[in-house]
Amino acid sequence: MPQLFLDKVKCLRNIENMASKASTNNLSFRPHFKTHQSVEIGNWFREFGVSKITVSSFRMAAIFAKAGWDDILVAFPFNPVETKNLTRLSEKSKISILIDNTETLPFLEQIENEVHFYIDIDTGYGRTGVISENVEQIDSILKGSRNNRQLIFSGFYCHAGHSYKAANQYERDTIHQKAISDLKNLKDQFHEYSPIALYGDTPNCRIQNNFSGIDEITPGNFVFYDLFQYSIGTCKMEEIAVAVACPVAGKYPEDKRIVIHGGAVHFSKESVTVEGKPVYGQLVEQTKNGWIPASGVQYISEISQEHGILKNCGEFFNTTRIGDLICFLPVHSCLTVNLMNGAYHIYDPQSCGFVPFPPG
Amino acid sequence: MPQLFLDKVKCLRNIENMASKASTNNLSFRPHFKTHQSVEIGNWFREFGVSKITVSSFRMAAIFAKAGWDDILVAFPFNPVETKNLTRLSEKSKISILIDNTETLPFLEQIENEVHFYIDIDTGYGRTGVISENVEQIDSILKGSRNNRQLIFSGFYCHAGHSYKAANQYERDTIHQKAISDLKNLKDQFHEYSPIALYGDTPNCRIQNNFSGIDEITPGNFVFYDLFQYSIGTCKMEEIAVAVACPVAGKYPEDKRIVIHGGAVHFSKESVTVEGKPVYGQLVEQTKNGWIPASGVQYISEISQEHGILKNCGEFFNTTRIGDLICFLPVHSCLTVNLMNGAYHIYDPQSCGFVPFPPG
Repeated sequence: MPQLFLDKVKCLRNIENMASKASTNNLSFRPHFKTHQSVEIGNWFREFGVSKITVSSFRMAAIFAKAGWDDILVAFPFNPVETKNLTRLSEKSKISILIDNTETLPFLEQIENEVHFYIDIDTGYGRTGVISENVEQIDSILKGSRNNRQLIFSGFYCHAGHSYKAANQYERDTIHQKAISDLKNLKDQFHEYSPIALYGDTPNCRIQNNFSGIDEITPGNFVFYDLFQYSIGTCKMEEIAVAVACPVAGKYPEDKRIVIHGGAVHFSKESVTVEGKPVYGQLVEQTKNGWIPASGVQYISEISQEHGILKNCGEFFNTTRIGDLICFLPVHSCLTVNLMNGAYHIYDPQSCGFVPFPPG
Repeated sequence: MPQLFLDKVKCLRNIENMASKASTNNLSFRPHFKTHQSVEIGNWFREFGVSKITVSSFRMAAIFAKAGWDDILVAFPFNPVETKNLTRLSEKSKISILIDNTETLPFLEQIENEVHFYIDIDTGYGRTGVISENVEQIDSILKGSRNNRQLIFSGFYCHAGHSYKAANQYERDTIHQKAISDLKNLKDQFHEYSPIALYGDTPNCRIQNNFSGIDEITPGNFVFYDLFQYSIGTCKMEEIAVAVACPVAGKYPEDKRIVIHGGAVHFSKESVTVEGKPVYGQLVEQTKNGWIPASGVQYISEISQEHGILKNCGEFFNTTRIGDLICFLPVHSCLTVNLMNGAYHIYDPQSCGFVPFPPG
């Protein structure tokens, strides 16, 4: 079976770097836990002073609340189906939700405990949120929530996810500038509420240096990074902290093709484009201390449910045997980790090798 | 949370139709269970006379062996990492494996129980298997296995998965003709072994009528079908037996956009192309008896980890409220079902609604 490996040294360094970036810029740090979805890895954040987190569903919120996190933002537009879950979770923890409409407000009159909310702001992504310029809509939400004493307005939230689709860094810079400037304007316009501004996808939090007006950042993917983040310049290859080990299942000399047990149910079908062709994973070489990029670059170029295919493998074809376990950096670590159901193997320097994690 | 719904009536009809297709063509029927991965649904096949199955991993083989299936083909090239699993499983069940190389044979000398094998044949797909014309390689495998008394050659196996990539039905017909003719030739050439021929992806098993030379078929996806199968003409829309119910999380009048809780971790990132654009799911209307295609066609046109987006929803935008549970046919039911971890809800005519399945 393919297995997920985690390099704890890289992972801790990634957390430390982002915590330090936040602190240097006077930003509060509320990391998104959707990437790792692991109680154990979540605990690693505590030693970097992290005490509040972001998740993307009530299911995740329940898992981390049970693990002792008591300040959780569910960064997904609240929908009435979750009212009972919200009531249950807010009994013991400080739960914040996102609101971008007035339709949801009547349902929130049923909540029995204090709940904080942010207004989700769309600065150009076009997924969720009130368009930044739509002050009228923000006013309606604030008016509509005024009589609900349990529902406390905390500020504005923006996920500028269109930075992932940007063609180049110039476009990403423009997206970032608009987002922080829109949030700053909203804070000014609604200053009587003393709102704070939450912001931050991994690319912008890593690359940008001007966070004027922003109070708190919520990046997630940085804990592991992946080939996609590498492809848009967010991280270095050697910062990617997860790899998938796959057994070699077949070798076919006609096109020096290697087939691995490792497919869409392990890597997902997300791809990056390299020289005009889709790539689903990149080979790394295992070392005593983890892994390094393989000297001859090899990509998973096709994927089906359980199979991955590497073509024209040259010398690597000759040195690889059926049954070998070979490792790949994934394209989208969030989806890969989700598919592997959190069954990590972690590099343990004491045993000089990877051991199951959590142990046993 | 998004939930997976299953229409048992459609599902049973799909199984019955394929069982009857096999029987009409004098074919033995060894359905692939990778699509549903459910012990309960597996049991539904028994009433149609199914007693042997196909799976794609030893993990799945172990689950179904425990559930009482005692004739299982692991349709993935055997790799030495699985030797212990093979020994354990073959103690009580008839396990068949695929072999397409001689490198694996020495490892198979360790097995303690009888194991059957098929030679995996590549008739043009280019994923795994010995190229049909490479009789020398087949000879080497047969010679290499001759002294292993526990390893019994049963015949040839072919998955003509390139039929999924074919541009049209003519191309698919050509792929099918070559596959069955290649298998027939191999059976003739190696007739002293009395080999049988196993064949069959869902599109070819459904559409084709000439299976001359084939002994057994192994389709899998037909149990549910999906939008992809519909898009290549394998099934009717009303035969698709699974749907994903997603809560509406947001409504955005600027482009009559609806955002659902339902993303890549529920649907996968597989898409079909409709009018040049990617589609990740198609809206259906819920009825007392299950669902029917929605009158105004609506597609999930963008997807991220937890979000799905429907744009330009017209009248549907006006009649839909936040919190409504709306249902979608998935693009690739195998990947969707895998992501939903087998937590089905099944239509129960007695309670006139969908109830959790397995119950409780």
